Amino acid sequence: MRERLKELLEKVKSGEISIDRAIDELRILPYQDLGYAKVDHLRGLIKGFPEVIFSQGKTTDQVINIMLELLKVNNRVIATRATYEVYKSLKERIPDAVYFDRARIIAVLREDVEKKGKIVVACAGTADLPVAEEAAVTAEIMGSNVERIYDVGVAGLHRLIDQIDKFYSANVVIVVAGMEGALPSVVGGLVAKPIIAVPTSVGYGANFNGLSALLTMLNSCVPGIAVVNIDNGFSAGYLANMINLMVEENKK
Amino acid sequence: MRERLKELLEKVKSGEISIDRAIDELRILPYQDLGYAKVDHLRGLIKGFPEVIFSQGKTTDQVINIMLELLKVNNRVIATRATYEVYKSLKERIPDAVYFDRARIIAVLREDVEKKGKIVVACAGTADLPVAEEAAVTAEIMGSNVERIYDVGVAGLHRLIDQIDKFYSANVVIVVAGMEGALPSVVGGLVAKPIIAVPTSVGYGANFNGLSALLTMLNSCVPGIAVVNIDNGFSAGYLANMINLMVEENKK
Amino acid sequence: MRERLKELLEKVKSGEISIDRAIDELRILPYQDLGYAKVDHLRGLIKGFPEVIFSQGKTTDQVINIMLELLKVNNRVIATRATYEVYKSLKERIPDAVYFDRARIIAVLREDVEKKGKIVVACAGTADLPVAEEAAVTAEIMGSNVERIYDVGVAGLHRLIDQIDKFYSANVVIVVAGMEGALPSVVGGLVAKPIIAVPTSVGYGANFNGLSALLTMLNSCVPGIAVVNIDNGFSAGYLANMINLMVEENKK
Amino acid sequence: MRERLKELLEKVKSGEISIDRAIDELRILPYQDLGYAKVDHLRGLIKGFPEVIFSQGKTTDQVINIMLELLKVNNRVIATRATYEVYKSLKERIPDAVYFDRARIIAVLREDVEKKGKIVVACAGTADLPVAEEAAVTAEIMGSNVERIYDVGVAGLHRLIDQIDKFYSANVVIVVAGMEGALPSVVGGLVAKPIIAVPTSVGYGANFNGLSALLTMLNSCVPGIAVVNIDNGFSAGYLANMINLMVEENKK
Amino acid sequence: MRERLKELLEKVKSGEISIDRAIDELRILPYQDLGYAKVDHLRGLIKGFPEVIFSQGKTTDQVINIMLELLKVNNRVIATRATYEVYKSLKERIPDAVYFDRARIIAVLREDVEKKGKIVVACAGTADLPVAEEAAVTAEIMGSNVERIYDVGVAGLHRLIDQIDKFYSANVVIVVAGMEGALPSVVGGLVAKPIIAVPTSVGYGANFNGLSALLTMLNSCVPGIAVVNIDNGFSAGYLANMINLMVEENKK
Amino acid sequence: MRERLKELLEKVKSGEISIDRAIDELRILPYQDLGYAKVDHLRGLIKGFPEVIFSQGKTTDQVINIMLELLKVNNRVIATRATYEVYKSLKERIPDAVYFDRARIIAVLREDVEKKGKIVVACAGTADLPVAEEAAVTAEIMGSNVERIYDVGVAGLHRLIDQIDKFYSANVVIVVAGMEGALPSVVGGLVAKPIIAVPTSVGYGANFNGLSALLTMLNSCVPGIAVVNIDNGFSAGYLANMINLMVEENKK
Amino acid sequence: MRERLKELLEKVKSGEISIDRAIDELRILPYQDLGYAKVDHLRGLIKGFPEVIFSQGKTTDQVINIMLELLKVNNRVIATRATYEVYKSLKERIPDAVYFDRARIIAVLREDVEKKGKIVVACAGTADLPVAEEAAVTAEIMGSNVERIYDVGVAGLHRLIDQIDKFYSANVVIVVAGMEGALPSVVGGLVAKPIIAVPTSVGYGANFNGLSALLTMLNSCVPGIAVVNIDNGFSAGYLANMINLMVEENKK
Amino acid sequence: MRERLKELLEKVKSGEISIDRAIDELRILPYQDLGYAKVDHLRGLIKGFPEVIFSQGKTTDQVINIMLELLKVNNRVIATRATYEVYKSLKERIPDAVYFDRARIIAVLREDVEKKGKIVVACAGTADLPVAEEAAVTAEIMGSNVERIYDVGVAGLHRLIDQIDKFYSANVVIVVAGMEGALPSVVGGLVAKPIIAVPTSVGYGANFNGLSALLTMLNSCVPGIAVVNIDNGFSAGYLANMINLMVEENKK
Repeated sequence: MRERLKELLEKVKSGEISIDRAIDELRILPYQDLGYAKVDHLRGLIKGFPEVIFSQGKTTDQVINIMLELLKVNNRVIATRATYEVYKSLKERIPDAVYFDRARIIAVLREDVEKKGKIVVACAGTADLPVAEEAAVTAEIMGSNVERIYDVGVAGLHRLIDQIDKFYSANVVIVVAGMEGALPSVVGGLVAKPIIAVPTSVGYGANFNGLSALLTMLNSCVPGIAVVNIDNGFSAGYLANMINLMVEENKK
Repeated sequence: MRERLKELLEKVKSGEISIDRAIDELRILPYQDLGYAKVDHLRGLIKGFPEVIFSQGKTTDQVINIMLELLKVNNRVIATRATYEVYKSLKERIPDAVYFDRARIIAVLREDVEKKGKIVVACAGTADLPVAEEAAVTAEIMGSNVERIYDVGVAGLHRLIDQIDKFYSANVVIVVAGMEGALPSVVGGLVAKPIIAVPTSVGYGANFNGLSALLTMLNSCVPGIAVVNIDNGFSAGYLANMINLMVEENKK
Repeated sequence: MRERLKELLEKVKSGEISIDRAIDELRILPYQDLGYAKVDHLRGLIKGFPEVIFSQGKTTDQVINIMLELLKVNNRVIATRATYEVYKSLKERIPDAVYFDRARIIAVLREDVEKKGKIVVACAGTADLPVAEEAAVTAEIMGSNVERIYDVGVAGLHRLIDQIDKFYSANVVIVVAGMEGALPSVVGGLVAKPIIAVPTSVGYGANFNGLSALLTMLNSCVPGIAVVNIDNGFSAGYLANMINLMVEENKK
Repeated sequence: MRERLKELLEKVKSGEISIDRAIDELRILPYQDLGYAKVDHLRGLIKGFPEVIFSQGKTTDQVINIMLELLKVNNRVIATRATYEVYKSLKERIPDAVYFDRARIIAVLREDVEKKGKIVVACAGTADLPVAEEAAVTAEIMGSNVERIYDVGVAGLHRLIDQIDKFYSANVVIVVAGMEGALPSVVGGLVAKPIIAVPTSVGYGANFNGLSALLTMLNSCVPGIAVVNIDNGFSAGYLANMINLMVEENKK
Repeated sequence: MRERLKELLEKVKSGEISIDRAIDELRILPYQDLGYAKVDHLRGLIKGFPEVIFSQGKTTDQVINIMLELLKVNNRVIATRATYEVYKSLKERIPDAVYFDRARIIAVLREDVEKKGKIVVACAGTADLPVAEEAAVTAEIMGSNVERIYDVGVAGLHRLIDQIDKFYSANVVIVVAGMEGALPSVVGGLVAKPIIAVPTSVGYGANFNGLSALLTMLNSCVPGIAVVNIDNGFSAGYLANMINLMVEENKK
Repeated sequence: MRERLKELLEKVKSGEISIDRAIDELRILPYQDLGYAKVDHLRGLIKGFPEVIFSQGKTTDQVINIMLELLKVNNRVIATRATYEVYKSLKERIPDAVYFDRARIIAVLREDVEKKGKIVVACAGTADLPVAEEAAVTAEIMGSNVERIYDVGVAGLHRLIDQIDKFYSANVVIVVAGMEGALPSVVGGLVAKPIIAVPTSVGYGANFNGLSALLTMLNSCVPGIAVVNIDNGFSAGYLANMINLMVEENKK
Repeated sequence: MRERLKELLEKVKSGEISIDRAIDELRILPYQDLGYAKVDHLRGLIKGFPEVIFSQGKTTDQVINIMLELLKVNNRVIATRATYEVYKSLKERIPDAVYFDRARIIAVLREDVEKKGKIVVACAGTADLPVAEEAAVTAEIMGSNVERIYDVGVAGLHRLIDQIDKFYSANVVIVVAGMEGALPSVVGGLVAKPIIAVPTSVGYGANFNGLSALLTMLNSCVPGIAVVNIDNGFSAGYLANMINLMVEENKK
Repeated sequence: MRERLKELLEKVKSGEISIDRAIDELRILPYQDLGYAKVDHLRGLIKGFPEVIFSQGKTTDQVINIMLELLKVNNRVIATRATYEVYKSLKERIPDAVYFDRARIIAVLREDVEKKGKIVVACAGTADLPVAEEAAVTAEIMGSNVERIYDVGVAGLHRLIDQIDKFYSANVVIVVAGMEGALPSVVGGLVAKPIIAVPTSVGYGANFNGLSALLTMLNSCVPGIAVVNIDNGFSAGYLANMINLMVEENKK
């Protein structure tokens, strides 16, 4: 930052730029530095990293208008937690939008991105699929290869063990589980990779809308497991992709 | 009950017993029947079934006096949740008392009982040992053979799988676990036996004194798992023994 | 397992089977052993033990397709938590399906199973009936005789005491209760049998969707009571049947 | 109140009392009426009704000083939740103080009160005794006859039924219970009297310091049961005494 | 009970009744005594005491059939938590049924009952009215005079103080409050009568469906307040009526 | 900010200051502006506003050293939540320190501050005094006159009403209450001033360490009441003082 | 009050008014003084302060009738938490009613009020807008100038810092936030003004309907932040307006 | 795995090894593969990766004995949550043990490990230091460079912004925070790196032993933040190190 400041002040001293112009640049300078200019080190690695709209709690019109606005300056925009109804209306205005129905994600991707590395997304029950797919599709659109392992569960441990090889080639593992939420601990006992655990609200009774799975994952006796909010597949996919790309970029 | 009543009334009619005597017998009759006379069908199977004192919240004097009282009419009495200090004082008054220190159980056993069948008690961490031992010692004193499998945990799944054969020969399995409490689900996925899950208060933070393990066990996606109160090794051992003896008795 | 391995290796040594064939068998061997081959000791006792589909959270199409798939290799399949609407659609595709409406269970039973032993299912209020029936029908389909005692409740204790004889002939007792959930403790004070307590979400206000009944049952001062998840009649029926059959099988 | 006002104003008009004196009386009048003058209707019935000090959270000096202050204008003062240490210090200053050790109540009673009617205080476990005694001693000091029934519990229902006659002669029943807190429901199913239920913090694990017993009692399916705070024997005794005296007073 | 037994046994001895007949009577005797015969002391005071149906969770047909059944042997039957829709259907079958719409109570009252004594039912907000009316109508139908004081609230304390005289003539006070639930404490500070506090689920946010009001009432620093379940106006009315009638009956 | 920037840049242009010097000033400028320079508008009003140390969780040495450090550049420093033991040790190093024992505050005040306006701090029980005093002493040291009204409580409403005049002359009212926490609602119904409510952890049972009082205050039906954390007298005093001084300063 | 009493009594003495008339005045006097007459000091400052109806839980007819009633004696009435449907029906009866749709407030304002001072209302997400607008519109109608700063959030800190100047000219700041609720702490770290924090129920999963944001705000390490109930924009606007007007009035 | 099996079977066929020897190897083979052999891909990267003992809940003797046992086959062993007392006793037996007192970690490191990459560990308050140091020391011992940034907090945002450059050069950021736990969200808004958030139990009142900070972090509106258990610095350091080494190893 010192360099940029020096350069600017020398221009002021030499009269190259006016004091008013310098003030304007100075006002904006610190905030450019905060999180944007500097972060390019990581963000620069990721071509076509999309802008993201959280659709839940927004009207269809709001989602469409925000997406139109974002598409003016972005080639890649996605909307998460989007219903099919929103997609149908949006499609009329933005014909190249596509819908990942299980992931409930609308995407407009006007630029291709080469996928790198590998993330495994594992879950057990069919009811957990929407959350697992939100994680998987998010990571794929953001630039990661994703392998889905959806036929595993604690109740049938042999199926998990049978596919354990697939986990070893991943940089990061996302484990999605509802009910008692024990799967991340079991995977973590078998696989020495960073594990992002996603509790889901699937269950009933003493599940208390996902509290049970959340507590299980936070209390795991296996180190190296970190947890995101209940049903938050997006954040898990986002974080896994960030780690995966950082690893892959450094390979070069 | 009808038979006993008939017999009694006939004695009244014949004058064999006085009306006052009959009234006294009738007053006590229903309550004998409720839970005692009838229950003998099961309780009769179990020789030397001990009386039990819950020591927690009682003074040393209270524990000693209750035990002395019970020993007047029982050959086998145990006190659970008893500290070593209580034991030392009690030992001076009741020299044949023995102390199971890990289980925190004082026992006075003046009659031998043949152990039958088999219960497996499994746990993972050393901190869960007092609860596991309370379950194991309770079941042994009440008449069951117990095999302890204490070197297993979700974080090192291979150790559990390595000993899986031992579970197959048991009539009932008790699984004790703190922290995330996932062990019963994992055992339940491998072993088709009745499983009694005991959550412990071992852990910290979002464990909330055992709530985490309790919820995990209640929400298990594996059927055939039932849960007792946090740290309640005694009730687990009591129930497992009841099932085990019922199975064994029927073998004859 | 050692025996099977020895046999296999001797065949390799003698050239009876090829190395590739042996590898394939070895890969699958451990997982066969884990929970399947060995478990036959118990599972072998139970003829026609059904496969189970948890319908809640699945579409009608999903339930139908999974059931059709399972029926290819099973003579007995049930679907729990199934609405009448699902049943009507399924019936068109699988005409021999039957519906237990109070239990919300669809069953296709193409093989008869002799019922053994006895389980008592007790509950008090009419609102608890769906959960009690889920437990009862599950146990019946899996091979147990079930006696329903539905006209008892803590508020009218004499009705319970009047039928206490019926409990004494059971191997296992399932007690279903909502609101304050005190019934299992009361039954446990009268009957010395393994008791599986099922809290229900019936109630309002400080019931907190079944939390009240759940805590009551976990804290019972009567030993020998184990608890399953709120409204989980299926797991209670499954576990009770497992114990009941184990007892009966050993009778022979 | 209109009467008193009229009388006062007439005295002003007639000059019998000065305006300043009238103002003083008027300032105090409404608050006398609020809760004090009027309440005498009930409070007048109760001779020697004591003043009460809640000792918990107060220093020994504070308890002693407040009691000395209250004794200047009251013949009967009690301090609840008082330790024996506080009593010993207080006894040096107030030699006629007596201590109810199980109830943890210090009392100075310089006027006798005839006890009326009858309250039953029932509890099961020895650990619940301090709370039960706090209720019983409070009610006795305030003017009620109390019958203690401490040898009853849900786990041994016959002992309760054996003593059921004693409940029928009471005007009010206080039921104290920890752990699962089912006793009030059971008593309420047998006895058609107003029942005041007192949950205690006795228990462990999923008892959550009395929450379990509290919820059980609030959710009782038996009407006519009202609940006070966990461990609040004093308030139960106070309320029971109020009802009991109201009934007895009306008998005359 | 001794008397009845003696009488019965003498008839057996004299041959006045057969042994079989005696057995039948003896079998039923204890349960008649438990809660029924004896309780008559109180229940006998109350003429026309109605039978009660809790409609919530029952179908319209179930409510109608249970009521028809009860009317065969009762002159007075009520159904609580009944919607207007249920009432309309029931009215076609039972033309003399009446509906208390704010209280959500259907009543069939074929016998008049003289109302006695007085209960005050107080509440603040209009949203609390259904619960307050459930309490008030319950108490009226069961035989108490009820005065409603519905225009009071903590936010406008003067309105409460203005009507304080009305509370002094009641035997029991029911205070219904949602949101912060402070009204019972305020009334209890002004009125020395037994107070039954009814928390309601009225409110939002940190109210947590009535938990806030419930905790406030349980923690009241005013002694003599007892609490029923959230929204349970029926139990409050039932208990208040029981106390009120007991007081009034003793007046004679 | 524009003005300061312009001035600085003109000095650069004219060569009055070096570019390096300008860079240093610019680096610090934004953060001076963020919350410090600008805030002087309010903070400038308050002479001798003290620095604050939160002592809880710090060792005696840490508290002393931080205070010595702060006193190098401040004339007024306070430490909250300080025990008497900490004070005694600190006093040896900083002889002009004073201790407010009920408020648990150590203060070193080397500059006098004129107190302005008026804050009322009200509470009921003696157990709430430490929190009330923390609020009162904080506000006094920071520059407000404080009137304490400690003899009021919901259980004795007339005492509160008797002193209601004192509330009317305050700019802000702090109400401290434990147990059911109803006092802020009652005061808010009588006094149209900003009310800062402070729940305390005083109570037991269903108080749950202050949760009860906290929920009561958040759910108050009286608008104009805002709540701080349980036992956080300091924050209440700080906020009340801020409002009080803002009002008083504007009077000039 | 003494003065008014004296005056009244002198009129009685002189016969200027009758005793009956004096009694009537005396009966009403204390309550006029409680909260009404005296409070005029503050309420007198605020011209056209509206009456407020909380619509939630009321029928359309009830809202309309209460508003018509209030308009007979008030020139300014508002209804909060009102749906558009209610507004449409009400508009037919009260044509000059206006609707603030985002704030869900219906207002009838037949008298103008000069707005004074300044309140800032800040929030981040679009889902928090209804709560923020309820606060803002409430404060505006009650007499405050409001500046809305809705484009700020913790995830994009630079946008907040960019607008920090706007906060410095406010007398009070309202910060509305859902999800993790961190915004008030961040604003409080930058702005030395009284901050009223409003948690919203916006979020999902471990948000638990606003509990997460509520706890965050209560635990803020920044002093000077007070919290209202979840989603209670009205109370925040009411309190902020009260403080703002008090400051502004004192300016004169 | 196929390769190893093939090799083994060929040796059997050729008679190179006996069948018994082959059985032994086969029995152990699958479990070697599960998590051990395969994981070497990652674990092989990390030289001197230590074995870890969780000391809490273990006696001093247990910790010493386990460490002595582990040191027989490991050059690097650490014990977390170890008090100074344990260290002193252990030091007598293992003289080359060192103690990281703020981190409460005992380490015996008999082999050097080159530190790679960079992890930032940030926290605000001094009370959070033990948790932050546990994370930092864990990561350092496991092979990462760690930069500590401990002088930042939400209440003084400028200090954080001033050091923001330090975050940009890290591969992973650990943010430790108690009380309201807002720091991870703020850092996440400024820094586009994987963030591991560690809530601490520091705080009081509505903090509920860390629940407040935990919920804040789980609900963060900033994506890319994952959370570990309350106070679990070890797991955060373990996971951060795993990611950091994976990134660095790939650089080669």
